[in-house]
Amino acid sequence: MTDHCISGADIEAMEDRYRANFVNCLSGFKAACLVGTCHARENQENLALVSSVVHVGANPPLLGMVMRPHTVVRDTLRNIKANGVYTLNQVQCDWVEQAHQTSARYPSQVSEFSETGLTPWYANTIEAPFVAQSPLKLAMKLESIIPIEVNHTEFVVGRIEQVWLDKTRLDTQGRIDLSELDVACISGLDTYHQPRRIARFAYAKPQ
Amino acid sequence: MTDHCISGADIEAMEDRYRANFVNCLSGFKAACLVGTCHARENQENLALVSSVVHVGANPPLLGMVMRPHTVVRDTLRNIKANGVYTLNQVQCDWVEQAHQTSARYPSQVSEFSETGLTPWYANTIEAPFVAQSPLKLAMKLESIIPIEVNHTEFVVGRIEQVWLDKTRLDTQGRIDLSELDVACISGLDTYHQPRRIARFAYAKPQ
Repeated sequence: MTDHCISGADIEAMEDRYRANFVNCLSGFKAACLVGTCHARENQENLALVSSVVHVGANPPLLGMVMRPHTVVRDTLRNIKANGVYTLNQVQCDWVEQAHQTSARYPSQVSEFSETGLTPWYANTIEAPFVAQSPLKLAMKLESIIPIEVNHTEFVVGRIEQVWLDKTRLDTQGRIDLSELDVACISGLDTYHQPRRIARFAYAKPQ
Repeated sequence: MTDHCISGADIEAMEDRYRANFVNCLSGFKAACLVGTCHARENQENLALVSSVVHVGANPPLLGMVMRPHTVVRDTLRNIKANGVYTLNQVQCDWVEQAHQTSARYPSQVSEFSETGLTPWYANTIEAPFVAQSPLKLAMKLESIIPIEVNHTEFVVGRIEQVWLDKTRLDTQGRIDLSELDVACISGLDTYHQPRRIARFAYAKPQ
């Protein structure tokens, strides 16, 4: 084995940007989701790229995401707290550059939709914009915000209220082929990948 | 747009297995990580496939994972709570079948290592087995277990204590090319993918 050991102290000693790149690679591949919200009173739309969306449960259908209150997602988090709703939109390989650009620190009054050329779309049942381009869009209702005290982040848990997709993409067992939908994934902070399906296995049982 | 709307009520009405397949696809692509633990007193190793690992922070370096106390990861969770340490090992495309097989409900006294042919490896600094085959192995120290009350799951937050990898895989900015390491990702409960790198962008700034 040619492996080396990088210790906690080594990580602590890294330069900030280097450390951010490094540690963000360690969790493996991540989903690329755009979170759509709006500020009701100011009629201001926000769109933020989040790579920390995770499955929490199927029944009830719940997803979580880790958010840092004082970073670029600040407006998004404020809107989620104020309105209790948001959308999650899977990013396609075709437009990863536009999705990435939403992570720039635009002023609060600027819509990432108009800055990146992505198209807001409303279902009229939820006060948050979907990304029209996305082949898999979820309407989410805020369930709870759980503080992660060790680093002052928050785990935002939401309930899936609506799924918008072409139903013909669902197979007889309820699966969606994300590769066929050309859904992208991320590694680290800046690298995008196109996953190709290589295997599918039966529910594992002891041999 | 040819999208259809699947509502929360539609999801609730689904047959259990169908719903599990469906909802597990909605969060997008997921990392495929093997969690290695051991039961100190009984000298019993456990290995469990987890697809809910998520980045929590870079400084200090923290990862979280959602675990359900009463499922197949029960032994793993018990060991983490008892020992306060565990390993996270990225799965390669080459051996996704062996990784998937660890999710079978083996009896507690059976080691998923010996059942699947994966090789335990110890660093002698942490009481938990790594997967020798994995090109990216982390030693984790339990930081906190946060209850997610809405569905009685737990968010297990750990601190990265060691990273084992071939250092030549690190670029000058701290990034690891996970595709080059042949790391796999998962969609849903049973489908594995090989991600191919398609784009890398600079830190986004307003244009």
